[in-house]
Amino acid sequence: MELDLTADAVTLTRQLVDIESVSQDEQAIADAVEAALRPLTHLTVVRRGNTVVARTDLGRAERVVIAGHLDTVPLNDNLPSRLDTDTGLLHGLGTCDMKGGDAVILRLAATVPAPDRDVTYVLYESEEIDSEFNGLNKLSQSDPDLLAADFAILMEPSDAVVEAGCQGTLRVEVRTTGERAHSARSWKGVNAIHGAAEVLARLNAYEARRPVIDGLEYHEGLNAVAIHGGVAGNVIPDECVVEVNFRFAPDRSEADAEAFVRDFFAGYDVRLTDTAPGALPGLDRPAARQFVEAVGGEVNPKFGWTDVARFTVLGVPAVNFGPGDPMLAHKQEEFVPIAQIEHCERVLRTWLGGEA
Amino acid sequence: MELDLTADAVTLTRQLVDIESVSQDEQAIADAVEAALRPLTHLTVVRRGNTVVARTDLGRAERVVIAGHLDTVPLNDNLPSRLDTDTGLLHGLGTCDMKGGDAVILRLAATVPAPDRDVTYVLYESEEIDSEFNGLNKLSQSDPDLLAADFAILMEPSDAVVEAGCQGTLRVEVRTTGERAHSARSWKGVNAIHGAAEVLARLNAYEARRPVIDGLEYHEGLNAVAIHGGVAGNVIPDECVVEVNFRFAPDRSEADAEAFVRDFFAGYDVRLTDTAPGALPGLDRPAARQFVEAVGGEVNPKFGWTDVARFTVLGVPAVNFGPGDPMLAHKQEEFVPIAQIEHCERVLRTWLGGEA
Repeated sequence: MELDLTADAVTLTRQLVDIESVSQDEQAIADAVEAALRPLTHLTVVRRGNTVVARTDLGRAERVVIAGHLDTVPLNDNLPSRLDTDTGLLHGLGTCDMKGGDAVILRLAATVPAPDRDVTYVLYESEEIDSEFNGLNKLSQSDPDLLAADFAILMEPSDAVVEAGCQGTLRVEVRTTGERAHSARSWKGVNAIHGAAEVLARLNAYEARRPVIDGLEYHEGLNAVAIHGGVAGNVIPDECVVEVNFRFAPDRSEADAEAFVRDFFAGYDVRLTDTAPGALPGLDRPAARQFVEAVGGEVNPKFGWTDVARFTVLGVPAVNFGPGDPMLAHKQEEFVPIAQIEHCERVLRTWLGGEA
Repeated sequence: MELDLTADAVTLTRQLVDIESVSQDEQAIADAVEAALRPLTHLTVVRRGNTVVARTDLGRAERVVIAGHLDTVPLNDNLPSRLDTDTGLLHGLGTCDMKGGDAVILRLAATVPAPDRDVTYVLYESEEIDSEFNGLNKLSQSDPDLLAADFAILMEPSDAVVEAGCQGTLRVEVRTTGERAHSARSWKGVNAIHGAAEVLARLNAYEARRPVIDGLEYHEGLNAVAIHGGVAGNVIPDECVVEVNFRFAPDRSEADAEAFVRDFFAGYDVRLTDTAPGALPGLDRPAARQFVEAVGGEVNPKFGWTDVARFTVLGVPAVNFGPGDPMLAHKQEEFVPIAQIEHCERVLRTWLGGEA
C-alpha cells in the first residue's frame, strides 16, 4: 500500500491504520513510510530495521526530535478503519495509539521544507513490546548521534494537550511450583496452578499509590498481564507463571520499584524480565516551558510509560503531545477525533514556522 | 528403529520406550509395530491411522481383546530409558504408562501362534489426550467389528494386579471475562486474570468424595490442569480460561458429574470440552470373574480413567491388568519393575494356553 503525503492528515491516518502493523510485523508499514519520504529532497532518510529517520539539515540554532511508533497492540476485530463523519471520529486499531500522530509527523516532514528549527522525524518499530525490541532504544545504541537534540516531542496520544513526565514500568514473572502426577490420582501431586490463587488474591488486594509531583497527580498500577500453566489435560501441573506489570510513579527509581514488587510477592519466586524508568515532569527546563507556552499552557501528568523516558536518560527534555485520548489506547474500541489530528498539525506547523 | 520380537519383553519395552511417541506424534512407533507384526503369518494385521490391530482367526469359542496405547504424556527430561540392574527397575517416559504392557502384547502376539481363545491385539494412538483423538474410540466408530469380543484386558499399569472399573473424567473451561485497557491506566479496565482468583480459591477448598462400590473405595479429584490468559505485556487482559479436570467415581453418570461441576463453579461461564464415562467394577460378570480367578483373585479399584469404559459401553466386560505402579504414571520419575513385566507375560501366556 502506498502513502500519499499530499493528502490531508486524516486521510493519511486512515492509510497508516489500514496497513496492519502489530509489533514485530512492521515491515510493510516501514517500507511504505520509507518510500514516501525518500523522494523528499529536503530530507536525509536513514532506515534501521523497521525504523525510519528523516532529518532536515539547515544549520538552525536548535534541533528538535518529533517521534512516533509505527506498531500497534494485537488485532481485536478492529480493522479496517472506519470514519464516522457525523461524530468526526476515526475508529480502528492504531487510530489513537498512535497513527494519528504518525500522520501529523509525515505531513510536517513533507510540507515544511524549511522549518525554523532543524527537525529529526523518527518513525520507529516495536514500542508496544519488551524494550529490547524498541526501535528508539535500538537507535539510541546503534546511532546515538541521530537522536541528539535540544528538545523532543513524542506524539503519543495526550488529547492534544502537553503531558509531562511519565510513569516507569517493569515486568516480573511470579512463579509457583508443584509436582506432576496423573490427574486421576491428583492427591499424589502438588498443583502449581492452585498455588497461584494466593498470588492473584494479593493482586486483588493491591491499593494504588497516587503521589503528587510538580503539581501533577500520578497513579500507580499492579496487574497480571498474562498467566500460563499446564502440561496436559490429565497431568497435575508442576509450574504456573503469572506475568505482572508494575506501573510506577516517576518519584521511584527502577530499583525502588523492583524492591516494592519483590516485597509484595514475598515468599514467591519473582524474576524481573523487563524494566524502564519513569521520567520526572521536568517542567522547570527552558525548552519544555517554551513549548508548553507555545501550545497554550495546559499540562497534564502522563500515566503511560512512553519513550520520553529514553530522551530524559539521554539528557534531552521531552514531552508527550499528540491526538487521541490516552485512555482509549489498547482498547478494542479505540478512535481518534479528527479535530485533534488537525489541531496538533496546526500547532506544530506554526511552532516550526511552516505556512498555514 | 526396528523392534525385535524375538527379544525378551524387557528388552522390547526398552526398544518401545526409546521411540519417542508423545500423543499425536506416534507415526514412528506405529510404523515399527506394524513392520514387526506384518511378517507373522498367524495374524491378520490392520492399520488405521497410527493404530495397529492384529488378530488370530482360529474359530475358537471365545475371543478376547488385549489392548494398550502407544502414546505418552510430554517429555520431561526422562528419555532415553535406563535399566537399573541392581533394583530391577526400568526408568524412563512410558516405561510404566504403558510400554511395559505394550511389550507383553507384542511378545504374546509373536509367540503364541495358536491360543486357546482367539485374540485381538490392539496397539493404539492418542490415549493421553482428548477422546476425539483416541485410537480405540476412533476404531469403535470406523471398524466396530474389530473390537467385538467376549472379554477385554487393558494392559494399563495396575501393579500386575487386576483393577476393576474405572473413574470417569470430564474437562470444562471455566472462563472469566473483563475489559481490556492499557496497563498504564489499569483502573479503566477490568482484569480477567485477577477475576480467576476466586476460581482457584474454590479449587483449593474442594474436598474429595470417596465412595465404596462393590467393596472397592474410589477417590474423586477436581483440578486445574491448565490456565491461560493475557493479550500483551501492557494490556489489561479481558479473558482468562482455567481448564479443569474432574475425575469422578463410577456411581456418577457423566450428566451427574457435569451438574456437580457446574454447581461447583456457579456464577462462572463453564463450558464442557471433553467427557468420558466411568465403568462400574462389574465383578459379577462371569468373564471378569474367570480371569480374576486365573490370576490369583486380588482386585483393586481403578482410579484412572482407562478405555475399559469404552468396552463397557460396547457391552464387553473389561478389566485393567498391566505392569507398573499406576501412581507413577505421568510422573517425571516413572519406572516399571521388570519382574512385573515378566509376571504379566507369564500369567497371560498361561491363560492363553501358550508354551511357557
